[in-house]
Amino acid sequence: MKLNCDMGESFGSWQMGNDEAVMPWIDMANIACGFHASDPDIMSDTVKQAVGCGVTVGAHPGYNDKMGFGRRPIPHSLESITNLVAYQVGALDAICQQHGTRVKYIKPHGALYHEMMNNPDVFEAIVIAAANMDIKPALMIQAMGDNELHKKMADKYLVPLIYEAYADRAYDDNGLLVSRSLPDAVHQDSAVILQQVKDLLSGEINTISGNRLVLKADSLCVHGDNLDAIALIQQIRQILKPADSAP
Amino acid sequence: MKLNCDMGESFGSWQMGNDEAVMPWIDMANIACGFHASDPDIMSDTVKQAVGCGVTVGAHPGYNDKMGFGRRPIPHSLESITNLVAYQVGALDAICQQHGTRVKYIKPHGALYHEMMNNPDVFEAIVIAAANMDIKPALMIQAMGDNELHKKMADKYLVPLIYEAYADRAYDDNGLLVSRSLPDAVHQDSAVILQQVKDLLSGEINTISGNRLVLKADSLCVHGDNLDAIALIQQIRQILKPADSAP
Amino acid sequence: MKLNCDMGESFGSWQMGNDEAVMPWIDMANIACGFHASDPDIMSDTVKQAVGCGVTVGAHPGYNDKMGFGRRPIPHSLESITNLVAYQVGALDAICQQHGTRVKYIKPHGALYHEMMNNPDVFEAIVIAAANMDIKPALMIQAMGDNELHKKMADKYLVPLIYEAYADRAYDDNGLLVSRSLPDAVHQDSAVILQQVKDLLSGEINTISGNRLVLKADSLCVHGDNLDAIALIQQIRQILKPADSAP
Amino acid sequence: MKLNCDMGESFGSWQMGNDEAVMPWIDMANIACGFHASDPDIMSDTVKQAVGCGVTVGAHPGYNDKMGFGRRPIPHSLESITNLVAYQVGALDAICQQHGTRVKYIKPHGALYHEMMNNPDVFEAIVIAAANMDIKPALMIQAMGDNELHKKMADKYLVPLIYEAYADRAYDDNGLLVSRSLPDAVHQDSAVILQQVKDLLSGEINTISGNRLVLKADSLCVHGDNLDAIALIQQIRQILKPADSAP
Repeated sequence: MKLNCDMGESFGSWQMGNDEAVMPWIDMANIACGFHASDPDIMSDTVKQAVGCGVTVGAHPGYNDKMGFGRRPIPHSLESITNLVAYQVGALDAICQQHGTRVKYIKPHGALYHEMMNNPDVFEAIVIAAANMDIKPALMIQAMGDNELHKKMADKYLVPLIYEAYADRAYDDNGLLVSRSLPDAVHQDSAVILQQVKDLLSGEINTISGNRLVLKADSLCVHGDNLDAIALIQQIRQILKPADSAP
Repeated sequence: MKLNCDMGESFGSWQMGNDEAVMPWIDMANIACGFHASDPDIMSDTVKQAVGCGVTVGAHPGYNDKMGFGRRPIPHSLESITNLVAYQVGALDAICQQHGTRVKYIKPHGALYHEMMNNPDVFEAIVIAAANMDIKPALMIQAMGDNELHKKMADKYLVPLIYEAYADRAYDDNGLLVSRSLPDAVHQDSAVILQQVKDLLSGEINTISGNRLVLKADSLCVHGDNLDAIALIQQIRQILKPADSAP
Repeated sequence: MKLNCDMGESFGSWQMGNDEAVMPWIDMANIACGFHASDPDIMSDTVKQAVGCGVTVGAHPGYNDKMGFGRRPIPHSLESITNLVAYQVGALDAICQQHGTRVKYIKPHGALYHEMMNNPDVFEAIVIAAANMDIKPALMIQAMGDNELHKKMADKYLVPLIYEAYADRAYDDNGLLVSRSLPDAVHQDSAVILQQVKDLLSGEINTISGNRLVLKADSLCVHGDNLDAIALIQQIRQILKPADSAP
Repeated sequence: MKLNCDMGESFGSWQMGNDEAVMPWIDMANIACGFHASDPDIMSDTVKQAVGCGVTVGAHPGYNDKMGFGRRPIPHSLESITNLVAYQVGALDAICQQHGTRVKYIKPHGALYHEMMNNPDVFEAIVIAAANMDIKPALMIQAMGDNELHKKMADKYLVPLIYEAYADRAYDDNGLLVSRSLPDAVHQDSAVILQQVKDLLSGEINTISGNRLVLKADSLCVHGDNLDAIALIQQIRQILKPADSAP
């Protein structure tokens, strides 16, 4: 199981995140592409860091909304979704080529990610953008109890899927995330989080109702917002160690 | 000698140019990439039109300045120039891939073009962006009396150059464009313009001082701003006909 | 009954509308404020034209979304609505002061207008922005069969309301616009449109079901998109003539 | 002598500066207006903080260039300068009115400030924007050995000037700042900085060549970038205390 983390979310003179501290501990960097965050210079710096740490580069496209950080749903036609994803992935891939690497996968950001998971048509519009690119990027989506529909559609376009899970979020019996508006939706206790990492490795986790759920995850989404978060990433890294060989 | 024209310079709900009327008469479309003009949807529509007309797609990157339409010089480091060109070329190339084509060349826009022609370091920064991309795009620059320095530098990075000339602009004895602030800088008479097309085909033109100048041009830059301009493109097309086979 | 029209919706090098041709025939110009369209220079030119024609200046604030021309609903907190309206009205008012006039009213644009008419909380957030400004702008809203709630709320904040109606749209028996998705929602026949102008002047119109409806309108919203539209404005002007004294 | 500081330079989700820690110690807040930094919501929050601390609000307009943070010179016509300053000042003033205060002065930001100090025409374009506003804002400029030209021009338009000086920058014998590219341009030693504050209070400072220079300053520009900077502001506050009465 690989660790993925959103990276390169600064913009111009504004800093966000702790990319330098986080990069050595992750496997996959979801790099912002200039629409919800970042700019060509920051993208270049971030790709360079990723290459330096042997981290796989993924594109992290979002709605064109810096003020809302890509978190506000903005209506788009399906064709527009395909275009905005293609645009951003291609832009990052060209920056990658300046540093001798390529985009390997796409993970949509914020409201676009939610839209993709909630609306199969939006999912398909993103799959199409990926399918038409010669770099043949995979698409990272949320591991749920049942991803059959996603799998079927992606197979049709020959787009590989990467399933990601969360160690710090509670799941319901259907394998959906418990809404943040409900109590206990987010695990605060690092012991609980680390246990969920181990469970995810085993392929079966505890749901919020106390049942067991089979959840297939290729990657774990981590965050590097502060020192505690980075320390947690390092602990998760220890658990994964036998399988992976990052620093 | 191929005809090239700036295309796809609309933005959102704002229309600019007469792309549909011009596309059938040109060989190479310099397509705006979303920084000085355009957006992913307009880029997609424009690429689709180009493909439909068998027109070669070039990227037309500019400074990130929609309000100034990329015409205002904005200071950039050389690394930033490389990044902003790569970003835009990659973005357009990904849109191209949605329509089964690729970016074949780069022609910088407005203030970035002027900067490239005036500053060899900026030229090199753009050449580097091109050199690092797997699509190996050519770079379109202005044909001058002496392009040796450009040729040498581009050869070093294995980037092919395309030299473009203007039929409606007067040249001085050094093969530089006469400044628009001077009288007779722009030819108004269509007979003079068409004669300059013929001269460019022959490889030798009249300068503003009445001398003859050898000027090697692979492409002619035309504009489709209004009905008169489009009629002129069609007349130029007639002159080029023996050589090329556009409609 | 005054004629109001959206004006100043160009941006940078992109032109939109026929402001010069329309300005002499209207009473109130709803001037875009730089968020969904326009920029400080175009705002200045438009205000100057309005002053030259003796036209009252209104602010036409919208969501900060040039690509979507302010037509896409973008989620905002109520406080953000107040801030974005205040920002734009203040900006236009400062431009107005450069030309010796002031903003007299606010008419929200596109998706913000719809949000205002559909959500009383959004309406109140806009009323608050107006109430706190020393220029005491009125707020222009859609005349409906029943505007009691709007009136009551605006009175509470001492903000005057201006009710606008449409001559080219069909109304239902509740005084709401018939949805554009239904047949006969938009009047195409100029005779029908001009009759609706006369009816609006009398205070009573025909609804789509053939009933009579009392509709109080202070202003008529017209559009100047093309030559036909401008000709229609001139005909409407003739009907209003006895009451008003524009050119 | 009042302390002024640039404030409200965050944008959307990006934080910059330590406004909350700095606000209690300054007299005048130069608040960004949404072009080089900030947005309507951050402007509102910042004005609210200023009002809460009894700090005078000034507008801090800059070029419309978030990526370059307003530090890149971008060519503008003089009329455009007037428009862009008026737009931003009006926008902030409307936000101020939501919180019961008004803009009291204008201090241009970054490249616009430098342009104003280097080009009398740009200075005049900004003075005109101020002169035409009913709030009659003062204009803050750099105190130099000789500000006669500025004074004369501002008097013509009845715009009051506020002269600001720097405690951490070396001055030459003409009262100009020593260029940052030269050694000793910036004082690193807090004792030297505090001594310069005392000298500025007395109206005479030491130049880099060891001479004495008469420099009239109404305000001192301070920065709150980090904890050391904030500690320094507090020490400066102590020196000014007899004159002013901030916390």
